[in-house]
Amino acid sequence: MNYGILGSGIVGQSIGAALAAQGHSVVLGTGDPARLDDSKGYAGTLREWLAGAGPNARVGAFAEAAAHGEVLVNATAGLASVDVLRGVETHLDGKTLIDISNPLDFSGGMPPAVRTYEGGASLAEEIQATFPGLRVVKTLNTLTASLMVNPRQLADGDHSVFLGGNDAVAKAQATEMLRGFGWTDIIDLGDLSAARGLELWLPLWLRLFGVLGAPMFNLKIVR
Amino acid sequence: MNYGILGSGIVGQSIGAALAAQGHSVVLGTGDPARLDDSKGYAGTLREWLAGAGPNARVGAFAEAAAHGEVLVNATAGLASVDVLRGVETHLDGKTLIDISNPLDFSGGMPPAVRTYEGGASLAEEIQATFPGLRVVKTLNTLTASLMVNPRQLADGDHSVFLGGNDAVAKAQATEMLRGFGWTDIIDLGDLSAARGLELWLPLWLRLFGVLGAPMFNLKIVR
Repeated sequence: MNYGILGSGIVGQSIGAALAAQGHSVVLGTGDPARLDDSKGYAGTLREWLAGAGPNARVGAFAEAAAHGEVLVNATAGLASVDVLRGVETHLDGKTLIDISNPLDFSGGMPPAVRTYEGGASLAEEIQATFPGLRVVKTLNTLTASLMVNPRQLADGDHSVFLGGNDAVAKAQATEMLRGFGWTDIIDLGDLSAARGLELWLPLWLRLFGVLGAPMFNLKIVR
Repeated sequence: MNYGILGSGIVGQSIGAALAAQGHSVVLGTGDPARLDDSKGYAGTLREWLAGAGPNARVGAFAEAAAHGEVLVNATAGLASVDVLRGVETHLDGKTLIDISNPLDFSGGMPPAVRTYEGGASLAEEIQATFPGLRVVKTLNTLTASLMVNPRQLADGDHSVFLGGNDAVAKAQATEMLRGFGWTDIIDLGDLSAARGLELWLPLWLRLFGVLGAPMFNLKIVR
């Protein structure tokens, strides 16, 4: 499968490298693909990423990633996501977008607030409404990047991940990606309005991160 | 210990009966204590509750409950909590308030939205700011009533509960109550601003309730 990853921070790098390692063809989309040596915060530089991700992966502009991907992954900062997608709009129609972003607003300082949209809608719903040709699935926004692609690092994978979306084919593609990463407890929350609860989980996640002192945790739905 | 429970729905009834069964003296506070046979939604009538809760428990007006309790429990509907507390304000100074309520706003239909307050604050913080003489602890708002008081019903109690508050003595009292119910994984999230994440968990809880078809579930923080 050809994947286009939008966003080259720790989330995009982790997802992109894991997919490339499985043999998929990956373009990691970034704002300025010539700047391979810029610091990427928690992640390494793009030059380091390329060295690790192997022959199935390359770095490109957002538009190259969007054009390449049969399935797209939104790993941009949440408040920038709509603008990034608008810039590649000609490549979106009919494609699945796996949305991992969180609409975290840091303008009021730490901890960030979760932005909501018209009528309390989630960012995922805002993206779906803005780009009706996309088939948006929300998943994986509820935990740290390294666990997204390797859940067995923690409790042998005995914890939960969620998805929601309006399109059955897109959800099946997302589920296939999750199973490829090793997820076994995948909870289908129904349509894309499920993204409201998934995005509003972030304040508790951030608080737990502070208290536990490390991001290597996740929730399990015990039932 | 003398407990005053504010609110006589399923949460207040469950907490009150469990505390009375442990030998504590409980007044279950309600709006009109003479109406013992009114329907209480998911819970039984107050007459049924009295019959089950035994000799340590009685029903009273909100003010009787507030006067009786060394520790108070807020189990009122979230959007009514401040008004109920204002009505019993003369009994609040210096007391611990264990706040289990959720500020669910049903005015826009189902599912309800979670109301937030000035600057994104939680209801628990709003209560603390409005009644500075109280020592507010947020806990137990994250799960269904019967599990609150009997966590061992599910996975032998191997799931998590949280608390946050600004006062160490009040948090110790809440922790003692939780241990009395059988909780073992009690995660202290620090000061009362932790209530933001705990209240914003509700949209995901409500969605899971719909998907799983029953409320007998909880989250476990795997770490």
